[in-house]
Order: sequence, then structure tokens, then C-alpha cells
Amino acid sequence: MQLHNYFRSSASFRVRIALHLKGLPYDYVPVHLVKGEHQAPAFASRIGDALVPALVTDGGDVLTQSLAIIEYLEDTHPTPALLPADPLARARVRALAQMVACEIHPLNNLRVLKYLVRELGASEDAKTAWYRHWVRHGLEAFERQLALNEHVRAAQGLPASDYCWGDTPTLADCCLVPQIFNAQRFAVPLEGLARVQAAFDHAMAHPAFEAAQPSACPDCDA
Amino acid sequence: MQLHNYFRSSASFRVRIALHLKGLPYDYVPVHLVKGEHQAPAFASRIGDALVPALVTDGGDVLTQSLAIIEYLEDTHPTPALLPADPLARARVRALAQMVACEIHPLNNLRVLKYLVRELGASEDAKTAWYRHWVRHGLEAFERQLALNEHVRAAQGLPASDYCWGDTPTLADCCLVPQIFNAQRFAVPLEGLARVQAAFDHAMAHPAFEAAQPSACPDCDA
Repeated sequence: MQLHNYFRSSASFRVRIALHLKGLPYDYVPVHLVKGEHQAPAFASRIGDALVPALVTDGGDVLTQSLAIIEYLEDTHPTPALLPADPLARARVRALAQMVACEIHPLNNLRVLKYLVRELGASEDAKTAWYRHWVRHGLEAFERQLALNEHVRAAQGLPASDYCWGDTPTLADCCLVPQIFNAQRFAVPLEGLARVQAAFDHAMAHPAFEAAQPSACPDCDA
Repeated sequence: MQLHNYFRSSASFRVRIALHLKGLPYDYVPVHLVKGEHQAPAFASRIGDALVPALVTDGGDVLTQSLAIIEYLEDTHPTPALLPADPLARARVRALAQMVACEIHPLNNLRVLKYLVRELGASEDAKTAWYRHWVRHGLEAFERQLALNEHVRAAQGLPASDYCWGDTPTLADCCLVPQIFNAQRFAVPLEGLARVQAAFDHAMAHPAFEAAQPSACPDCDA
């Protein structure tokens, strides 16, 4: 498999974590977003939204959208599982993942920040305030959901979670960890988010998360 | 089951379509977003992100995030299927759904539009331009992906799709149709999107899409 991705793209980071968790080898194909390489015809002609990540299977199929790619890896390489077996628990894990992928991250990617500056005339301070507002707002919601999920687990006689849900990493951790990396990079205040912080710390102690992080990527220029 | 939702919320609309497609009865619980009813303690205390839709199962479990809810319905009521059986085809359908749910819709919901006006001082014209820009940009990407998928299907000897993928409605149609309703409401130009328009028209001829639309909802005030 080939993963077309960018070291700093948090959607790419999600897929890298999933590949490492499942122990699946892949060729790392860097696509430099800041240099606009995703808009070059050789890339954009194969991918409707011209975004990273894109996974090219050994059969040459091109798959897009990070959560769809991870679900594909789950369908085709079910062990270790990144989703619980129980439908209710699966829904809770997917909802946590989507709280990041549908509520936080879309507001803060590069093209949106560019629009704020170029089209709406936002200052650097206003752009930073936008970034911090939506990330903080979304992570507070994530923290509340983790607290609600604790009650659900307690009512079922299940132990508290080390990860976002249960005692093994799931799709939710694949989404949360890259978002926290971005939050740290933009100095988003993270105080008062004890469950989020604990889940992040626990995940980062796992070698798959460590191996997938931006600083471990071959295109990292930091 | 109870569906907490709002007639005009496109994420709610996605779940209504799925429930109708699967023939699952549900109690419609209106949550008036413009009046802020989603922020009332009785609602917000049960739902981390205080957003609609939320599905309350017959067992009292509260599930959030529209795509997670639809996947739960798929896991628990697999017929009729809203995802293909083949993993590659599943990934393509999920990617189309996420092109709407992760790339288009998050930029255009009510709280984001409010932030543009209140915090960034955007004029009504600038707000409308933002809305149209991101919807149009996302639908053009969706159109390109449908064209790429046509080639994939042709290479496999499969017929062209009536719906977004294949000859039955999928998760992708559940996401596309509400986004087109929103696009029409905000007068987003839709010319040149032949495949998108055909998929929308085909879906709207299906009674489940018709029954789920905003004007058929009990809280519709239009």
C-alpha cells in the first residue's frame, strides 16, 4: 500500500496511526500541502477533492477521506480491532471520532485559514483566535462526552477507560491524538480537560502513536 | 426510538432518510436550534456536543453524530443495506458521505455563520459569499469524485450509478440530498454539476427521501 500524505496533516496522521496499530507496512508518499503539491495534476486528477490522505491499495485502487480509509483497513484487516464489537459501543467510538473529524478539524485546516485572511481580511490575531475558539470549543464537548461515556460504562459494570473507549486504542484515539498535536502547535489552552489529556497521554505511550507522529515522518522539516 | 432533531438541520435530515429507507418507526422530538433549545440543560446534559441529531434507543441509550447513528442503524438493521458489501465499495461510499460531512457542512452551520458576523464583523454579503464558496467548492469535488467512480465502475464491468454509488440508495445519498436542499435555500449556483444533480433527482423520486424532507417535518415553520 501507498499512503499519500503530509507530515503535518492531522487527517493523514489518523491513518498513519491506524496503519501502525494494525502493523501494516506502507510506502510513505509525501505531498507537500504548503507548496500546493496536492493541486498538481498528477495527484488531483486521481482524487476528487485533491486532499490528503489518499491510500493506494496493492491493487491500485485509490481511496480517500481518512475515516473511510481507516474503516476500510478495519474491514480488510480486522485484527487488532479499532472498533468494538458491540453496536452501541461502535456508535460511541465513531461519534467521538466524528466530533473531531466533523466539528473541530474542518474549521481549522489550511484552506479555511487562508480564506479568513484573504477574503475576510482577518488579522493574524483574529485568525489565531478563530483557531483556538473552535478547537477549545470542540475539545470541551469531547471532554463532556468522555464524562458521559464514563457513566455509561459504570452503569454496565465496565471499568473506566484508559483510552477514549475501553482498554485498547480505537478510531476515536486515532482522531483525538492528531487534534491535540495541532492544539499544542497553535498554543490552544488545554487546562481543565483532564479526561482528554489522560487519553492523549495514554495513547502517546503506545509505540504505534509514537511511530506515526509528525516528527517521525520522512518529510518532516521541523 | 426517539430522534431529537430539527427540520432544517441537514445532519438531522441524513438520519431521517436512513430511518425511512430502513422502514424504522421513530418518535420525532423537535429541538429548535434557532431558539437555542439544544443548549437547554435537559438536552445538553445528555449530549456532549449539545448538537442535533441525537437518537435515543428503546433501551434509553443516547447516540450522537449523524454518521455514527446511521452506521449504528446499519449494524443493527442491516436490510436494506446503506453500505455495499465489498470493502472497496464501502470505502468509496463512506468517502462520498464524508466529503459532505467533513468538508462542506461543518463550514456552513449556524454557529459558524454567527461567529463570522459577531467576531469577524463579516457583512451579510460576505457571509453569503462564504457559504456559497464552500458549498460550491465541495460539490465540485463531489462531482469530480462521481466521475472518477464512474471509471472505477466501468473498469469492473458495473453499470453506471443511478444513485451516488450503484442502483440503491446509500449513506452517500443520505448526505448529498440534505446538502443540496441547503444549497438551494442559499441560492448556491449548481450549474455544471450534472452527476450531482442526477443523483439528487433520482434520490428525491424515492419515497423515503420525500418523507424525510424538511417540509414533511412536524416542526417545519416554513
